[in-house]
Amino acid sequence: MKAAVFYGTEDIRMEELETPSPGEGELLLKVSGCGVCGTDAGIYYGKSDKAVPPVVIGHEITGTVERVGPGVVSFREGQQVVVDPFIFCGVCDFCKTGSPLLCSNESFLGYNRNGGYCQYTVVPEQNAYSVPETLGFEERVVCETLATVLAGFDRLGPKPGSSFLILGAGTVGLLWNQVVRNSLPAAIVQTEVVKRRRETAAALGADVTISPCDTDVVETVRSLLPLGVDCIVDATGSTEAVSQALPALKKGGTFLSFGICPPDERLSLSLNWVYRSQVRIITSRRPPRHKIQEAVCILQRGIIDTKAVVTSVRPLSETAEAFRLFEKERDREIKTAIDPWK
Amino acid sequence: MKAAVFYGTEDIRMEELETPSPGEGELLLKVSGCGVCGTDAGIYYGKSDKAVPPVVIGHEITGTVERVGPGVVSFREGQQVVVDPFIFCGVCDFCKTGSPLLCSNESFLGYNRNGGYCQYTVVPEQNAYSVPETLGFEERVVCETLATVLAGFDRLGPKPGSSFLILGAGTVGLLWNQVVRNSLPAAIVQTEVVKRRRETAAALGADVTISPCDTDVVETVRSLLPLGVDCIVDATGSTEAVSQALPALKKGGTFLSFGICPPDERLSLSLNWVYRSQVRIITSRRPPRHKIQEAVCILQRGIIDTKAVVTSVRPLSETAEAFRLFEKERDREIKTAIDPWK
Amino acid sequence: MKAAVFYGTEDIRMEELETPSPGEGELLLKVSGCGVCGTDAGIYYGKSDKAVPPVVIGHEITGTVERVGPGVVSFREGQQVVVDPFIFCGVCDFCKTGSPLLCSNESFLGYNRNGGYCQYTVVPEQNAYSVPETLGFEERVVCETLATVLAGFDRLGPKPGSSFLILGAGTVGLLWNQVVRNSLPAAIVQTEVVKRRRETAAALGADVTISPCDTDVVETVRSLLPLGVDCIVDATGSTEAVSQALPALKKGGTFLSFGICPPDERLSLSLNWVYRSQVRIITSRRPPRHKIQEAVCILQRGIIDTKAVVTSVRPLSETAEAFRLFEKERDREIKTAIDPWK
Amino acid sequence: MKAAVFYGTEDIRMEELETPSPGEGELLLKVSGCGVCGTDAGIYYGKSDKAVPPVVIGHEITGTVERVGPGVVSFREGQQVVVDPFIFCGVCDFCKTGSPLLCSNESFLGYNRNGGYCQYTVVPEQNAYSVPETLGFEERVVCETLATVLAGFDRLGPKPGSSFLILGAGTVGLLWNQVVRNSLPAAIVQTEVVKRRRETAAALGADVTISPCDTDVVETVRSLLPLGVDCIVDATGSTEAVSQALPALKKGGTFLSFGICPPDERLSLSLNWVYRSQVRIITSRRPPRHKIQEAVCILQRGIIDTKAVVTSVRPLSETAEAFRLFEKERDREIKTAIDPWK
Repeated sequence: MKAAVFYGTEDIRMEELETPSPGEGELLLKVSGCGVCGTDAGIYYGKSDKAVPPVVIGHEITGTVERVGPGVVSFREGQQVVVDPFIFCGVCDFCKTGSPLLCSNESFLGYNRNGGYCQYTVVPEQNAYSVPETLGFEERVVCETLATVLAGFDRLGPKPGSSFLILGAGTVGLLWNQVVRNSLPAAIVQTEVVKRRRETAAALGADVTISPCDTDVVETVRSLLPLGVDCIVDATGSTEAVSQALPALKKGGTFLSFGICPPDERLSLSLNWVYRSQVRIITSRRPPRHKIQEAVCILQRGIIDTKAVVTSVRPLSETAEAFRLFEKERDREIKTAIDPWK
Repeated sequence: MKAAVFYGTEDIRMEELETPSPGEGELLLKVSGCGVCGTDAGIYYGKSDKAVPPVVIGHEITGTVERVGPGVVSFREGQQVVVDPFIFCGVCDFCKTGSPLLCSNESFLGYNRNGGYCQYTVVPEQNAYSVPETLGFEERVVCETLATVLAGFDRLGPKPGSSFLILGAGTVGLLWNQVVRNSLPAAIVQTEVVKRRRETAAALGADVTISPCDTDVVETVRSLLPLGVDCIVDATGSTEAVSQALPALKKGGTFLSFGICPPDERLSLSLNWVYRSQVRIITSRRPPRHKIQEAVCILQRGIIDTKAVVTSVRPLSETAEAFRLFEKERDREIKTAIDPWK
Repeated sequence: MKAAVFYGTEDIRMEELETPSPGEGELLLKVSGCGVCGTDAGIYYGKSDKAVPPVVIGHEITGTVERVGPGVVSFREGQQVVVDPFIFCGVCDFCKTGSPLLCSNESFLGYNRNGGYCQYTVVPEQNAYSVPETLGFEERVVCETLATVLAGFDRLGPKPGSSFLILGAGTVGLLWNQVVRNSLPAAIVQTEVVKRRRETAAALGADVTISPCDTDVVETVRSLLPLGVDCIVDATGSTEAVSQALPALKKGGTFLSFGICPPDERLSLSLNWVYRSQVRIITSRRPPRHKIQEAVCILQRGIIDTKAVVTSVRPLSETAEAFRLFEKERDREIKTAIDPWK
Repeated sequence: MKAAVFYGTEDIRMEELETPSPGEGELLLKVSGCGVCGTDAGIYYGKSDKAVPPVVIGHEITGTVERVGPGVVSFREGQQVVVDPFIFCGVCDFCKTGSPLLCSNESFLGYNRNGGYCQYTVVPEQNAYSVPETLGFEERVVCETLATVLAGFDRLGPKPGSSFLILGAGTVGLLWNQVVRNSLPAAIVQTEVVKRRRETAAALGADVTISPCDTDVVETVRSLLPLGVDCIVDATGSTEAVSQALPALKKGGTFLSFGICPPDERLSLSLNWVYRSQVRIITSRRPPRHKIQEAVCILQRGIIDTKAVVTSVRPLSETAEAFRLFEKERDREIKTAIDPWK
């Protein structure tokens, strides 16, 4: 089979690998598509040390069951699935105390096990979720990302009538936009540097979009909502963007750090402000596995516009190019999906 | 001013009363409209002993501020408002322990204080909520009911991707339909005896509607969702309807008793089933006051179709007729609003 | 090895079985003790059809690791452990949607897999929890039951300053007593038929104990707490006991069905009362696995008197006698533990 | 009556004032005692601008009802009470949206209304809580502080079996110690500079106490609990203390900012660490009013050692001296109470 194998920083090679075999409790998937995520680009450009080369990266996987391994009971050949790429050990201290998402011995499809930038891949039965035939390609490709957004939404726990400031309108920001829009909000303000993305944000549901380069975010928010916003969600991963936006938070509000900020950045935080304003700073990383199922349910109702998010589909041979576009030409595409059969 | 005064069972009289004066911290409202609720009809027909005659009933009040009483700081003349009719004492054991909604010495506009079936009424400043000029008549009329639905929704606490069975498609059932539809559900099934209401439920967002007289509710639900539904919300107030529907509940699910069942009815409940199925039985009555504000925020975004709910507006003189229609001809109207200036 | 094998109603046989071998990811335990639970007695007397004979029942297991199976990474020989007997499949609809405790294909040590009334037993590594050497025999024996109580306590979610009515003072009732006592309650009232158990309840922390045969429960509660209690926990499994006690519930309070009521009993429940009183009816069955770890942590601090609960230790040969005492002579023992090496 | 009137920084004067009269819905209290809080000392030394001089400060008030104002229904003369000093307006945007604790027009007994360092004071009926005669002087004096701790504890929402690091062992730290100790914790570690307070912390319930000047806090915590602690509670109000301690937080843990850090201090926070460690930063300021009632309930059971906290009682004339001791000689007293009749 064809695979894009990651060997190290800016080194991805198209190779012919042997089609893998599913082990006990595993499925062999024929990959139909695999999304390109910021973390994948980060791995490629050496900003993230998560991947253990040589490895097939890509963790936003959708495919059809080609073959089931021994002991598999809940799948049969031909079923269309989406995948949770996270595998916890079940026996470390975090797993044993009810926090498998913090597992000390985690595996991750596309990091330290082969992922989805290839034609066939093997996934544990427990990580695969069946999806209805009616679910489109783009919907299946964003399932994993939508699941992480839904997990963040749970953590945030907004009430109907809450107001939101979403920082960033990439894939994650646009999915936040749509989840929030469908959750009885009072108002959605969204910031984004790239004009095209701002336009998409506005078309999807943001009441107001702001270019943070030209416009004072806090002033704009406060002119609309004098008390500030109930929730700020960062989908940029920029500490500076967060720092600029925080004063827009309403007393009693919550800031959710959702984008991954670089390890060398520091937020200069006044605990006196935290106390006087009674704000919370929370975060959300991986979704509990069943959030994939929730994402499937929601997508089935057709209320999430995934075509506005998945803006191009490229062949396996353009995986590196997809990373380059993500990193250097953000105005070109939002989410790229890799189709290994194209 | 003109007022419809309740004197006792099936005895409402059109009278000319003196226009009241707002006291300390009170507002005099010029009533623009007042919704007719099942409880109002219940009072009229002697099913409820809540009202203390002679009294102007009607508690779903919207109006404009005609005059502010001494000490009022947050309103000025001419502002359009909606009203929370519930007044707690602040000093009883329930109020003192953080449960003002369970107040032992409550007052209630339209029960033991004059309400809204009249041209002018007095409300405490704390109970009035300012609404934007853009909010339509029907939206203002349903604010109070929507607030109670939002409070029930909070109690229920469904996750995105939950499935729902809503019993009944009157005003309350149709508002539940719309709140749920806008909250990332997986599926909505709704039962209703009256054909026209079923059609409205389907048009608004129910995936499947059921006439419980002709069709087995549990069978229909289970054929669509073999494991059952995550949430059942009763908006009928019929113990029998609840009893029939409960087996449709998924393991781990929640039944919310929202309609008011008659005091002499009993549900025959197997605690063994509760335990084995790990289900919850909860309820929700009055909304915390700020739910009115949430309702206003949500209505402002135009996502709730209130014209599908408020199906007629009648003059004060037809208040008794509105009760009669509610009670005896359910296929005629859904919610009636009284306009005391018509 | 010696084992007490269950063959059917009132048929338990002492047999010599081959010592089992741990498979992949499994531990062979040398059983030090195994508690006798009401469900075990129920199985023996044919009231419960959970067990699949022939099988070694007993699920409140403590022991030391005799041998580790292939692939085991978190245990070594000689470690003392307690066990969560519940094994979920991981791939059914409930497991896949985040509710493994509702698993459709569950296994259970002591029901459909060999449990603890024997000298050696095999348990999955994921189900075993290491305990410190300082934890006494009685503490290890009650770990599993305490975990179920802690799970119920989580569901109940009482605030500091809550008042409690606990129905029953057997093992479960006495553990509830102690968990509540250590959780900043305002007051604990406990009912119990057996005098000795009432005395233990009082000694451990109940402010008032009631013999429900001689005394009106609701009257007694209301004389102490005129508004009623915030929480009622049933640890009797008697629908009649629940029915008698429910009117003692405070407005806004919660009833937790914790004991297992017989399938043929029905509670006659007024939904009007539920609504007017704004009460919740909830339940709790199996604990999430990590509750075992919480139980270990709590027991380590020495705040739970387990010797008041585990009142006798009997050899394997007296397993049937232990069931008989549980069922027929409740005034003799509270919890019996079986020591298979005695 | 005698009163200690605050006129400005380091200017408190003993004066003879006219005994006040209770207005509508108010109580006149004969003050039995009033605690000295860090905020009071901060006001005196010009670190806080909360007080509006000339004013009688002091907000930890206990007394007996001397006279009831018109309209008071829930108190009679002679009753012993404790007081919530916070008065919200009820009509600002925060009050109207369910967040009265964030009220924009708050009053506060002892800040902008006369408080408790005097012989008689007036409080709203809604702010007074009746306490049983059995509650001792020290218990009544700490009620208000205990209420704030209980509110923080609610926010924190720890599960049984959680581990805690409490920074500081002054009044607040020692009450946290005792609330936590009585809430099924796994372990309590407490830091404190003053030796005597460390000893009290250890005597009350801390498993380990640390002098942060001599000992590395994180190293000590990690040697005991290799994964770190579930909860860090700051009761010092020192950003540096927080900064030093934060790395002791377990993945998935929560930091509660409870002490008031100076407005000019900044915490240098890595959002990458927040994200990777999945930690929360929360805070808690004022308690919902009913927490006073919870505090009373808990104190009644005698499980909080208040004599270890209230270490001296001084006459009104020594109010300034009490502030001096709080600020400059922390090893002398923990909480001082003022008795205006001494």
